[in-house]
Amino acid sequence: MECMETLLTRRSIRHYLDRPVEREKVERALEAAHWAPSGKNNQPWRFVVVQGREVREGLAQLTVSGRIIREAPVAIAVFMDKEVSYHREKDIQSIGACIENMLLAFHCQGLGAVWLGEILKNRRKVETMLKVPHTWEFMALVSAGYPARDGTSTRRPLEEVVVWFKNKG
Amino acid sequence: MECMETLLTRRSIRHYLDRPVEREKVERALEAAHWAPSGKNNQPWRFVVVQGREVREGLAQLTVSGRIIREAPVAIAVFMDKEVSYHREKDIQSIGACIENMLLAFHCQGLGAVWLGEILKNRRKVETMLKVPHTWEFMALVSAGYPARDGTSTRRPLEEVVVWFKNKG
Repeated sequence: MECMETLLTRRSIRHYLDRPVEREKVERALEAAHWAPSGKNNQPWRFVVVQGREVREGLAQLTVSGRIIREAPVAIAVFMDKEVSYHREKDIQSIGACIENMLLAFHCQGLGAVWLGEILKNRRKVETMLKVPHTWEFMALVSAGYPARDGTSTRRPLEEVVVWFKNKG
Repeated sequence: MECMETLLTRRSIRHYLDRPVEREKVERALEAAHWAPSGKNNQPWRFVVVQGREVREGLAQLTVSGRIIREAPVAIAVFMDKEVSYHREKDIQSIGACIENMLLAFHCQGLGAVWLGEILKNRRKVETMLKVPHTWEFMALVSAGYPARDGTSTRRPLEEVVVWFKNKG
């Protein structure tokens, strides 16, 4: 896929085939996520890959998006390591950048993924369930698998979010 | 460029040629940014494109990264519109995702860009200087132009940031 096309055609995928995802494809998505930029290159992101049905079921019960987590063969929980954080707001932006790279990498490889945030209401329960170090703070969950349906979405007109500053000089 | 390559080869570019950037290329980068995902698809990002030397000089004086802002012909200030924000932390993550799409889109098009955060210490001054609505909160500045030098970076080994959860069932 051509690179600009990748950026413009990624959509959230919420329906998956009953087909396992190759470990190499998950690894490439994690590698892409890891190459996101971060302030002072502190790489504050941490990932827990969950494939087992039992643990996915545990996560599914913590959010209204449970159906998606059950259906997608892969769930990746994304954390911020507070131990390496230097500026909470900038680090959270970096976490967003790494998640976007991950979503794009799945899309590149013919997979579909979705960024789930509602589960954040159960942040502490996820941290306990996945037995992460006490400095890891849960930030988001990404579900991924082979898409069963296309995603659809819209954006407001670009002009509504862009200002071209009067460009003297 | 192939899409996985794009994700793995983007680097922060801090040195630029004295060559203007075509408006269409900036527009495509903004379009890619706008196609980032956001919670409830609230699209909280707003952008102010600054090309004039005079205004870039004003921004340059607000950060230790001034040399970059002076040298790059394009600066894009990224804001979050608090009026459409529904969850500050998730919205800030989305801002990070939109910035990553923008950086990747510049890279796709043979341009180089860098995400500048230090200027955030002068958040209010930037908001005043760029005359944004009072609900727009400054989040980051992206400088972009034709690269004069390659960027270099490193990442810690992937194994240090990834846990494969024991996958029973």
